Amino acid sequence: MSTQNGNGILENDTVELAKIVHVFKNLKSLENFNRNGGDVVPIFVSKEKLVCEMLIQAQHLNSKGTLHGGQTATLTDIITARAAGVTIKDKGMASVELAVSYMLPVKVGDTIEITANVLKIGRNMVFTDCDFRRKSDGKLTAKGKHTIAILPDLPGVDLDNGKQF
Amino acid sequence: MSTQNGNGILENDTVELAKIVHVFKNLKSLENFNRNGGDVVPIFVSKEKLVCEMLIQAQHLNSKGTLHGGQTATLTDIITARAAGVTIKDKGMASVELAVSYMLPVKVGDTIEITANVLKIGRNMVFTDCDFRRKSDGKLTAKGKHTIAILPDLPGVDLDNGKQF
Amino acid sequence: MSTQNGNGILENDTVELAKIVHVFKNLKSLENFNRNGGDVVPIFVSKEKLVCEMLIQAQHLNSKGTLHGGQTATLTDIITARAAGVTIKDKGMASVELAVSYMLPVKVGDTIEITANVLKIGRNMVFTDCDFRRKSDGKLTAKGKHTIAILPDLPGVDLDNGKQF
Amino acid sequence: MSTQNGNGILENDTVELAKIVHVFKNLKSLENFNRNGGDVVPIFVSKEKLVCEMLIQAQHLNSKGTLHGGQTATLTDIITARAAGVTIKDKGMASVELAVSYMLPVKVGDTIEITANVLKIGRNMVFTDCDFRRKSDGKLTAKGKHTIAILPDLPGVDLDNGKQF
Repeated sequence: MSTQNGNGILENDTVELAKIVHVFKNLKSLENFNRNGGDVVPIFVSKEKLVCEMLIQAQHLNSKGTLHGGQTATLTDIITARAAGVTIKDKGMASVELAVSYMLPVKVGDTIEITANVLKIGRNMVFTDCDFRRKSDGKLTAKGKHTIAILPDLPGVDLDNGKQF
Repeated sequence: MSTQNGNGILENDTVELAKIVHVFKNLKSLENFNRNGGDVVPIFVSKEKLVCEMLIQAQHLNSKGTLHGGQTATLTDIITARAAGVTIKDKGMASVELAVSYMLPVKVGDTIEITANVLKIGRNMVFTDCDFRRKSDGKLTAKGKHTIAILPDLPGVDLDNGKQF
Repeated sequence: MSTQNGNGILENDTVELAKIVHVFKNLKSLENFNRNGGDVVPIFVSKEKLVCEMLIQAQHLNSKGTLHGGQTATLTDIITARAAGVTIKDKGMASVELAVSYMLPVKVGDTIEITANVLKIGRNMVFTDCDFRRKSDGKLTAKGKHTIAILPDLPGVDLDNGKQF
Repeated sequence: MSTQNGNGILENDTVELAKIVHVFKNLKSLENFNRNGGDVVPIFVSKEKLVCEMLIQAQHLNSKGTLHGGQTATLTDIITARAAGVTIKDKGMASVELAVSYMLPVKVGDTIEITANVLKIGRNMVFTDCDFRRKSDGKLTAKGKHTIAILPDLPGVDLDNGKQF
């Protein structure tokens, strides 16, 4: 049963969150490119929003010792797709457009908070974006956008082990 | 001395190409995120263009078994930055904007040809884009764009070992 | 004197708002492309945010009778630039990157609320975005992004009559 | 009958070009936002490419006396949609994503050459981009991108009088 708690958050979002935590934890052991999302820790989920944290470590850096642009883009891809997957359970998805604006360099040891927003789910298309904030001061470090096509004819995908991205 | 050969390509681009091949070969051994560019093989370089190839392998895939959107974004970032680095030798650079349009899924075993174009080098800004084509039939599979700020006050960077991205 | 009212809004923002209302009202009489912002009515301004409304009329439409994509892009350009202009008073600005995602068609007779956000003002660069919402139901109809270069060497511009965009 | 001439261009492209010239000429008299494409002169068309020219005049400018970012975005929207319309004759289209990078200011009296490329026509989606070049020296002044959804259920549109954008 799904009931509303005081924060307007569905009770069974904690079930959804547990699933998503599980999915991200598993990424680390993968051989494919999704392994690059393996340090992400989901902390809140609803149909509209997925909030995660990540501690910046050596494997996320560019040669200047700050968070790599490709890592930020990869997190945008994976986290927004998973946010959309809270609603789109039985269909495949394919990226149409990914874009990232880089505003502030993030250093090793910083924790970033990533908030993915599901802006609109249409019949054929999902619009999402996400904010990257430095947890220590809340400053916006990057902003991503991910527009995704819903694949009408594909068989259902198994969300529980990260098959959707 | 730099002389022109029959293809209108500067002779000493072969020196530049050798350097770039060396840079990309080294990426594989890195601990940082640039390791994700380690399967890229540069095949041509000029001041305006850097052409590379990459054989799609397990480490580049999403869960559907096709080239991961984050891998494509990462390649856009790294290869266009290196293309700009052919001209910008003594300054730091920082990504401002990265964007990718995804047109066709690419399968494991396919080889993609990535052509990075240096569109404009201004005083503070470099505009680049790149095409991803499936080598077997020349079809466009993705198109990337990378707008980069030139950092005026940073010390020079060591290009020879991939310090520019 | 600038004091804080109950909403955390600076009192003298009403002075700034009056200026901006004046600027937009004047656009209608211009011969240049800024005339296309002439139906915009600013309703709130702070250093971080400029909120406007526009009633969709015949001059804003495409051939399908809905808000034209070029009109939305033009509003993104003009309104976010003006939002940045609240802070950047003595320098020229130039667009680097404009992007719009279109989510929902807007019909003639609808009023849209446009909220421009100043995300970051750096030394050389301003990052902004904006939301377009249908006022009747609050639904997001489009989302824009505008990345602007601050021109270091240009003479000051006269904000009072819309000289900044 | 459609036959190939020496340039690899279909003979009946001249018929198509005449139609497109007619469409753009008509835009000037429209009340809707498409009037802002009314100074565009198409000069070449094929299924992959639509090339146009436009003399920069007072109505296209920003307050700095150079081509307005919103005008460039509007041209990107209209010209790429028309380029896609050469192939997609019997279906509606809707913008999903529009993006423009601005590289060089263009002055009044300059002529720009705009080349729209149809990159991919899929089942549900069209990918296009376009280059803006200053005709006097061929320099790239801006680059646009327009991703368009094909509307499956809409009735056919009348291309001959610009009903497609």
